[in-house]
Amino acid sequence: MIEAAEPDFPQAEYEARLDRAQRAMHADGIDALLFTTEAEMRYFTGFRTLFWLSPTRPWFLVVPKAGKPIAIIPEIGAALMRATWIEDVRCWSSPHEDDDGVSLLADALRGSTRVGIPMGRESSLRMPLNDLARIHEMLPGMEPVDATPMIQALREVKSEAEIATIAEICAIASRAFANAPKLFHEGQPLKETFRSFKIDLLREGAEDVPYLVGGADQGGYADVISPPGVKPLRAGDVLMLDTGATLRGYYCDFDRNWAFGHASDAAKRAYRTLYEATDAALAVARPGATCRDLYNAMAAVIDPEGKTGGGDVGRYGHGLGMQLTESPSNIHFDMTVMKPGMVMTLEPGMEVADGKIMVHEENLLITDGPPVLLSERAAPELPIL
Amino acid sequence: MIEAAEPDFPQAEYEARLDRAQRAMHADGIDALLFTTEAEMRYFTGFRTLFWLSPTRPWFLVVPKAGKPIAIIPEIGAALMRATWIEDVRCWSSPHEDDDGVSLLADALRGSTRVGIPMGRESSLRMPLNDLARIHEMLPGMEPVDATPMIQALREVKSEAEIATIAEICAIASRAFANAPKLFHEGQPLKETFRSFKIDLLREGAEDVPYLVGGADQGGYADVISPPGVKPLRAGDVLMLDTGATLRGYYCDFDRNWAFGHASDAAKRAYRTLYEATDAALAVARPGATCRDLYNAMAAVIDPEGKTGGGDVGRYGHGLGMQLTESPSNIHFDMTVMKPGMVMTLEPGMEVADGKIMVHEENLLITDGPPVLLSERAAPELPIL
Repeated sequence: MIEAAEPDFPQAEYEARLDRAQRAMHADGIDALLFTTEAEMRYFTGFRTLFWLSPTRPWFLVVPKAGKPIAIIPEIGAALMRATWIEDVRCWSSPHEDDDGVSLLADALRGSTRVGIPMGRESSLRMPLNDLARIHEMLPGMEPVDATPMIQALREVKSEAEIATIAEICAIASRAFANAPKLFHEGQPLKETFRSFKIDLLREGAEDVPYLVGGADQGGYADVISPPGVKPLRAGDVLMLDTGATLRGYYCDFDRNWAFGHASDAAKRAYRTLYEATDAALAVARPGATCRDLYNAMAAVIDPEGKTGGGDVGRYGHGLGMQLTESPSNIHFDMTVMKPGMVMTLEPGMEVADGKIMVHEENLLITDGPPVLLSERAAPELPIL
Repeated sequence: MIEAAEPDFPQAEYEARLDRAQRAMHADGIDALLFTTEAEMRYFTGFRTLFWLSPTRPWFLVVPKAGKPIAIIPEIGAALMRATWIEDVRCWSSPHEDDDGVSLLADALRGSTRVGIPMGRESSLRMPLNDLARIHEMLPGMEPVDATPMIQALREVKSEAEIATIAEICAIASRAFANAPKLFHEGQPLKETFRSFKIDLLREGAEDVPYLVGGADQGGYADVISPPGVKPLRAGDVLMLDTGATLRGYYCDFDRNWAFGHASDAAKRAYRTLYEATDAALAVARPGATCRDLYNAMAAVIDPEGKTGGGDVGRYGHGLGMQLTESPSNIHFDMTVMKPGMVMTLEPGMEVADGKIMVHEENLLITDGPPVLLSERAAPELPIL
């Protein structure tokens, strides 16, 4: 038996999540929710493990319209799940020759007609398609309903405990970014820049650094999703690092830019424009504003004549929490309305020149009043190291 | 344009993978393969990014029965994909209001009847179910075929370049494990043990440490998938750390055990038994042996009277490569035959006493002769720090 000594949150947190979900289920006439993915299972149970990296075993959570969630999971997770607030934990020895939890899952869903399953934007299915087909065969009366809008709406508004955790990891990353002058220098291969920053994040208190991307090149960079190469930093380079570090399973997600030695006027100008675009979004980030409003506020600064659209990234920020990126998206078609408790990123980006781009990102909390920055605001002018 | 300066492997590696896949497609009468997941997309293209952590955007790869793979991906990945050997890169601005790559994907699949999609053991679908349903509506003549056995068989046998990469990350982790006496000490909170080990792995050359789990308790531990708590290490504790560190996107996956101050006889005995179980598996790990043979060899040492079955973990090791765990599984029902070039873990585990368990893991390469250990073999007796 694992000591249930250090749950990420008190039980009341999970009770409140379940209560909100079951109210939404009642409103939508849904009998049960079925989840196969890490974030949703953790959201309702508190079950947190890196073991999801192994694709071998499926994990299932059924949320009934009344009563606690039911975990249907491989034996290897039984002790950890039983240390959470979940009581009904049904296990099998996995991998299994011919029934990897399918019969147990069908048993848990039997009697439920309208079953909510995430099937829409940002969702995936973490179980074999063949096994989902078997579930449908075993439960011919089951009517799947897309639970994507419901679970996204629930997760978008964070509790005070969640906000405190995100604020803490944002503060840790802010401290690490502030150490840049000690960590980075001309001549340093980009791989070593990444390595030293990752180690610094861990030293400053991050539990993990699942996401660290960036780029460096003369006056800007070509791309924001590549792994680092061995090319050394040179005078005139603009370095950008964007990190999703974690604490108790919650992410920060913001970046910083620095120039080495000197910076081109174009780079300085782009940096200032992105800073002002962020200001413009902060000015409208109030309850009642939509993601489209945030997008438009930034686009008006970056691209006042409306020439470039959203650019390659497609959006200027997103929700943030248990995942590096969550719904909603700051994009022209997302009409999600800001509510107090939402944690968002603002992530304007633009072309500097010659195919070089620059991006800028902050993390913030929507409140009844002005938004609260969770990341320590970037310097107003491009810092030169 | 991203400089295609440092691909993980030369182009011949990807050509050989495609050739093997297309031969298998021809043998199975498959017109095209469709992949939505990171490992498979990277396997055929070399496209490597941490951006998969963001669930927002789907990514698609179509492998036709002749010619190069077709990447159908969000604009944000275009530059990086165009720096690989892939020529046909079709992009859209994602997220999209109502067509997140679905039409582009349907276009790429049109004309293919039998389409191989992973639908079996260990597979998942990284795209919304609603969008898969739309693909079926748009392509009523498409017959999905389970491509799981084919892609698993392809990926199970590693190339020399893959083996060299896995050997390198195993050597890095072996060096970090050898640093244990300098890193870990009584009184150290387990969280700090994890942190110091993660930093040491990075210093020794790991590019990332996506997976680090473990446990510590008197004479054994309760569980092998939990995150660490703040409880300090005490005399009599057995500490186990199990890491999946990465280099150029390839994993090691092995663990080590240490006792602090002194060890119980039960703990020493269990350690020795697991060491001997590993020896027994190494003695049979030859081309022609099955995963069941490996499992049986270990089970005969751990549980000679056949009382406990596979235990909670369900298997004694697995394939290893681009993912922390890959097919096949060392379990009683897996009849996969060992071939030269397979990289496997041996991971026997057992109960020590009182619900405490112990696990032991090594990484090895199957060759024409005896297997080659890629992890530096654990000490034959439980090390005491």
